[in-house]
Amino acid sequence: MLHAVIMAGGSGTRFWPQSRRSLPKQLQPLVGTRTLLQQTADRLEPLVPAERTWVVTNAGLAEETRRQLPAVPATQVFGEPRGRNTAPCIGLAAIRLLAVDPEAVMLVLPADHVITTSEAFRASAETAAELVLANPRRLVLFGISPSHAATGFGYIQQGEPLDDIENGYHVASFREKPDATTASGYVESGDFFWNCGIFAWRADQVLALLEEYEPEMHQQLTLLREQIGQETYEETLATEFPRMTSISIDHAVLERAPDVCVLAAPFEWDDVGRWEALARVIETDEEGNSKLGSVVTLDAGNCIVRSTADHLVAVVGVDELVIVHTPDATLVARADDEEGLRRLVQVIEEQGLDEYL
Amino acid sequence: MLHAVIMAGGSGTRFWPQSRRSLPKQLQPLVGTRTLLQQTADRLEPLVPAERTWVVTNAGLAEETRRQLPAVPATQVFGEPRGRNTAPCIGLAAIRLLAVDPEAVMLVLPADHVITTSEAFRASAETAAELVLANPRRLVLFGISPSHAATGFGYIQQGEPLDDIENGYHVASFREKPDATTASGYVESGDFFWNCGIFAWRADQVLALLEEYEPEMHQQLTLLREQIGQETYEETLATEFPRMTSISIDHAVLERAPDVCVLAAPFEWDDVGRWEALARVIETDEEGNSKLGSVVTLDAGNCIVRSTADHLVAVVGVDELVIVHTPDATLVARADDEEGLRRLVQVIEEQGLDEYL
Repeated sequence: MLHAVIMAGGSGTRFWPQSRRSLPKQLQPLVGTRTLLQQTADRLEPLVPAERTWVVTNAGLAEETRRQLPAVPATQVFGEPRGRNTAPCIGLAAIRLLAVDPEAVMLVLPADHVITTSEAFRASAETAAELVLANPRRLVLFGISPSHAATGFGYIQQGEPLDDIENGYHVASFREKPDATTASGYVESGDFFWNCGIFAWRADQVLALLEEYEPEMHQQLTLLREQIGQETYEETLATEFPRMTSISIDHAVLERAPDVCVLAAPFEWDDVGRWEALARVIETDEEGNSKLGSVVTLDAGNCIVRSTADHLVAVVGVDELVIVHTPDATLVARADDEEGLRRLVQVIEEQGLDEYL
Repeated sequence: MLHAVIMAGGSGTRFWPQSRRSLPKQLQPLVGTRTLLQQTADRLEPLVPAERTWVVTNAGLAEETRRQLPAVPATQVFGEPRGRNTAPCIGLAAIRLLAVDPEAVMLVLPADHVITTSEAFRASAETAAELVLANPRRLVLFGISPSHAATGFGYIQQGEPLDDIENGYHVASFREKPDATTASGYVESGDFFWNCGIFAWRADQVLALLEEYEPEMHQQLTLLREQIGQETYEETLATEFPRMTSISIDHAVLERAPDVCVLAAPFEWDDVGRWEALARVIETDEEGNSKLGSVVTLDAGNCIVRSTADHLVAVVGVDELVIVHTPDATLVARADDEEGLRRLVQVIEEQGLDEYL
């Protein structure tokens, strides 16, 4: 059966002050009225119903995650004792899936991306599942046709086309986040996709590959697997998981595996990695301002302004700012100053103002 | 005796969202912990004690004004039924003063200016009072030596020096708010002062001059004067006052009177007419940011940032902005965009958001 594994443990602070440690981006209604996590789950229906949806988050967020997804069985939402990147996360999900469905196919997806064309997404996911069913050793990736020479994503180089499907390719190579010139070359060649971090494969196959490439991690996972359903499981998880190698599934498995293919994603995708991205996924006014809540702008352009319904934010004569009001904190920043926002969080911490993070 | 008449009826919106219609600039702790009105009264002590302090405001602000100045007798704080500029305001104060002190000398001063050197101010006010006592027909103005070619003030041209005092001059002429070139000429000549709207004269003399130059207003004031202490007074005030000509004391009296002199003010004065002015009267950090409340800045310069103690405002990578957080409204604007702030208030009104004004 096809199961969805939503990776929801992110704790980014790039959307501070809207996102907080206790309520990070994926748990926020950043776009629309449902949170990004809820939208991720919504989008799977009816292809993958809530009964076959699994969510891996961090321990501190498990309760809120369950609250946001009441249709997902509570036991299928579990927290990592400590973030160890995507390979241990996916390994953990794999052993849990196999305990209930030895032939489980996993559709792995991040909780904090925006995909506006849900039907196309599901059609594509279904195709991926079929590819895996046809060849249980295959790992399927989703590639996004690059709209520009982004330097913030890894790239996937397409190889030979697959026999059994249109818009599917063997993967020729993986490339790390490139510099701007390299990225331009990738885009011009027409041979590259962005790696959006959405995958499909059989749970037993990814585990077999972990055994081959990361034997220690596989051993730790096997120890855990033997205790599923037993009283000792949580304790072993708390002991073993934090000891696992912190490594991405890309480095641990994808870049080493023999049969990896990529589907050209036919859906609209955005990782909304920073405030500026909101202007892409939310309608803007004639001056290019993306406004939410009680906001008045005057002679202002290309600003992202967010407030609550009962607090007026008035913006006069400025351009390209991000202005975010929340009940206890307000941000005013250059919209393109990603580095500044990162440092801001440090400064807030250094000044002992952690309560705001 | 020397009495102080504080003109506190202003309803400006230049400091929105901190100042509101119900709590304008003079009733706000814009600088320090006391409101500008309170600072104005504080500054007079011990030269003019609260018992001889009078405050003219608008009817809607009278209650809050009395609350802020508990030492001033409640009957000495009175509201104009409608703002009619400074001549009717001063005329009204004059008849009220004369009812208790036929020889009253009035020190007239706006409630919303910042004067940081209180002792020098009182010394100067005392000198002015002496000049009036020595010559009861004399009107005394305070002139500020211009620090730059401001276009937002009226100018006073000095004439012959006074015999009886240093740094005192007969007034040669009054000049309306000049354009930039004219202002530069004034400043270079060394013969001009800014008119800061602080005056000293006998109440009976200013009334006599109103009788001469504005006979209708004088008649209306006389009608009112006859009813001071009677039940009909408030009703007559409500009827007569709004009918008075709306004219400044400068146009009504000062520019026409025969014996007007100006004292070079030895005190530090600022009318804090706009947000930018706060950077002049409040200490700034090394980057030129004037910060109040819970504020963090990073790579930001020459900004005016104000928040409350329990709300963090974080400012990243921007310059020369004014950012003001209040519990129900936040402003982000170019600090020098005075015109924009004026229009903003209109826009807020047009959008039916008066509750925020």
